Amino acid sequence: MSVSEGSAEGGKALFDPSVVWEELARGGERIVLLVLDGLGGLPHPETGRSELQTARIPNLDAIAASAACGLSEPVAAGITPGSGPGHLGLFGYHPLRHRIGRGILSALGIDFPLQEGDLAARINFATVDEKGLVQDRRAGRIATDEARVLCDRIRESIMLGDDVELFLEPVREHRAVLVLRGHGLAGDLEDTDPQQTGAPPRPARARTKESERAASLIRSFVEQVADLLGDEPRANSVLLRGFDVHRPLPSLEQRFGLTGICLAEYPMYRGVSRLMGLDVDDDAGDAQDIFRNRLPAVWSQAHDLVFVHFKQTDSRGEDGDFDAKVAALEEVDGLIPSLLDLDPRVLVVAGDHSTPSRMASHSWHPVPLLIRAETARVDGVQCFDELACASGSLGRRPALDVMGLALAHAGRLEKYGA
Amino acid sequence: MSVSEGSAEGGKALFDPSVVWEELARGGERIVLLVLDGLGGLPHPETGRSELQTARIPNLDAIAASAACGLSEPVAAGITPGSGPGHLGLFGYHPLRHRIGRGILSALGIDFPLQEGDLAARINFATVDEKGLVQDRRAGRIATDEARVLCDRIRESIMLGDDVELFLEPVREHRAVLVLRGHGLAGDLEDTDPQQTGAPPRPARARTKESERAASLIRSFVEQVADLLGDEPRANSVLLRGFDVHRPLPSLEQRFGLTGICLAEYPMYRGVSRLMGLDVDDDAGDAQDIFRNRLPAVWSQAHDLVFVHFKQTDSRGEDGDFDAKVAALEEVDGLIPSLLDLDPRVLVVAGDHSTPSRMASHSWHPVPLLIRAETARVDGVQCFDELACASGSLGRRPALDVMGLALAHAGRLEKYGA
Repeated sequence: MSVSEGSAEGGKALFDPSVVWEELARGGERIVLLVLDGLGGLPHPETGRSELQTARIPNLDAIAASAACGLSEPVAAGITPGSGPGHLGLFGYHPLRHRIGRGILSALGIDFPLQEGDLAARINFATVDEKGLVQDRRAGRIATDEARVLCDRIRESIMLGDDVELFLEPVREHRAVLVLRGHGLAGDLEDTDPQQTGAPPRPARARTKESERAASLIRSFVEQVADLLGDEPRANSVLLRGFDVHRPLPSLEQRFGLTGICLAEYPMYRGVSRLMGLDVDDDAGDAQDIFRNRLPAVWSQAHDLVFVHFKQTDSRGEDGDFDAKVAALEEVDGLIPSLLDLDPRVLVVAGDHSTPSRMASHSWHPVPLLIRAETARVDGVQCFDELACASGSLGRRPALDVMGLALAHAGRLEKYGA
Repeated sequence: MSVSEGSAEGGKALFDPSVVWEELARGGERIVLLVLDGLGGLPHPETGRSELQTARIPNLDAIAASAACGLSEPVAAGITPGSGPGHLGLFGYHPLRHRIGRGILSALGIDFPLQEGDLAARINFATVDEKGLVQDRRAGRIATDEARVLCDRIRESIMLGDDVELFLEPVREHRAVLVLRGHGLAGDLEDTDPQQTGAPPRPARARTKESERAASLIRSFVEQVADLLGDEPRANSVLLRGFDVHRPLPSLEQRFGLTGICLAEYPMYRGVSRLMGLDVDDDAGDAQDIFRNRLPAVWSQAHDLVFVHFKQTDSRGEDGDFDAKVAALEEVDGLIPSLLDLDPRVLVVAGDHSTPSRMASHSWHPVPLLIRAETARVDGVQCFDELACASGSLGRRPALDVMGLALAHAGRLEKYGA
């Protein structure tokens, strides 16, 4: 038998089920998605128990015991995601189909109000020697306040032409974000950061004809900065990387009919939420504030999707501090009753990736996942941890599946075919 | 490389993560890949225990207990692979994207020095009756020495033209390999083997215009052989199948930056290794020699990937000899301490497919897998067998995933996205 070649859409659906969820989407129950950043871990070499297995998390364990459990794999085997792809997957955006450059993510990470067509890049202030070779790619990690002053000077002095607006915002220490706004800017440019010391910064080169105008603007920017900062003892140069042009994603409302709101302390996650068309609660403070105050406050707004982001599990993992990650897990566990009080019909607890304290970095390891809903196939899993969840009824799945399952449990997907 | 939405490359990445591993590859630790050919089995009907569950394999069990365990599925559900696709998958070559014809594999299997563009086919000596109908597709399984004499006669007598070189090498019993070397040979030809007795050999037909010259050469070859061997009592004809032209694969070094070496007793695995750009240890003898002598000898050459192949588990399974396969497992288990003495940072023990003694053939069943590394998510699996591994932290995965996980555990993959 010959199975006829499908349409382009049909082809996509074969490897990206979100195309079919779009087709089947309808109204339904509310979904709460609680993302514990960097949730998964690795066993402590002495105890053989992971952070989750060590922490006292009675609330998460109790939810797991009345939920369907499993593991989500963020992108694919062996692939360690950054925050961008880690979150996109959980929201039903295939992380290999939707790529967002570092420049855009950096701009989102400082709540910069990006507009469609903006060209963004990440900047490092750097030190070059008298021969023009990079001596320090981080300019001695100058203080954020020093970088802010430099950004102001550059913004006031540099002229790129009447038809281009330039934005330059400090991020932290030597890091900043450059945004150029104007018509017809394309972002297919090579990094100027040589990624090593002893080499000169690379010229900004266009990889495509469409990007040549942007390349020429960036070269002019870099030359003017070198003139302007030439006498600075440390930050006498800039290195640029992660060029990308902002193209808003099709929104969750367009795709799945979901209105949504983001409750996140850190700007990066608010930025990614805006990218997907979610509302953002600008009053959200720290985790205590989010769970105790903001969550009840926004609940009456009746968004279809409530996204709550908890950062400390990732931050403490990245610090390489096993005990502090355990404490972060216990902290969020203690806050969960405030969420349960609202009695969400569909509750998903997930992570965007693992951040094992032993590695002090993001990793590729699959991440514990649970879905509590009336239609959940409750399994025997009694503990919310990496090994217990491996035997749960959801199995190990791509993170992309999470949104499809959430939509289904919320009654938001029509039957497929007759 | 940018995998953008809708591009051919982007599409590939969605079903073949190795495209992304290529993009993210960087330097890192050494990887040892020990392939126990035909590793997986089925329960003995009397004991209910598989070969692995029956064998005393304390070393493999101990490694499993300190490793992440799982099962690898060679190609896809229900698909029984030959040696070629079974190995390609483990090395990160999607076995449905990289297809190698039987002719090429047969040539690799006798260490024939194939050159790019060579056309290869597998030959059976066969018996046809006076009406030209195939009586015996294997010519009574003539002895290899008899086939060798016939190959010599054919090579000396047959004329295909000044611009084509002909190679004909015996393999075993009635099997041989034909290689034609010349410009512009294409391999899209139909088999001449009718796959049944009582039917005439089929003419060599080109499926494409480009293959017509090759088809005409093969028809001439077949006619001349029939004239030459017409009086032979058994081997009076040849049947050809598996035509293919040799195109080297992109090497593991080009793809993932991996230099590598193959330690294998059997030529087939050395041939497949050459195809992927691995060095081959020509001094490798039997398993004892490989583990005790060659492995320590090549260790100082500091290849990124050391591939050790053990054949007997498959051979004894193919014999249908349960006890002999158990003995082969115990043999390799006893050799493993020589490998552990080298203290590899990343050790993968895998199989290219299952070969259950009960079936006396390759099978589609998933294959036990373990990865020992500092970053392994050590699970509760205490025994290296089909059922215990099913509950391991790696889960059941495509064999293709094995290389991605090995690269990740070796620190050889950059983070994906910011």
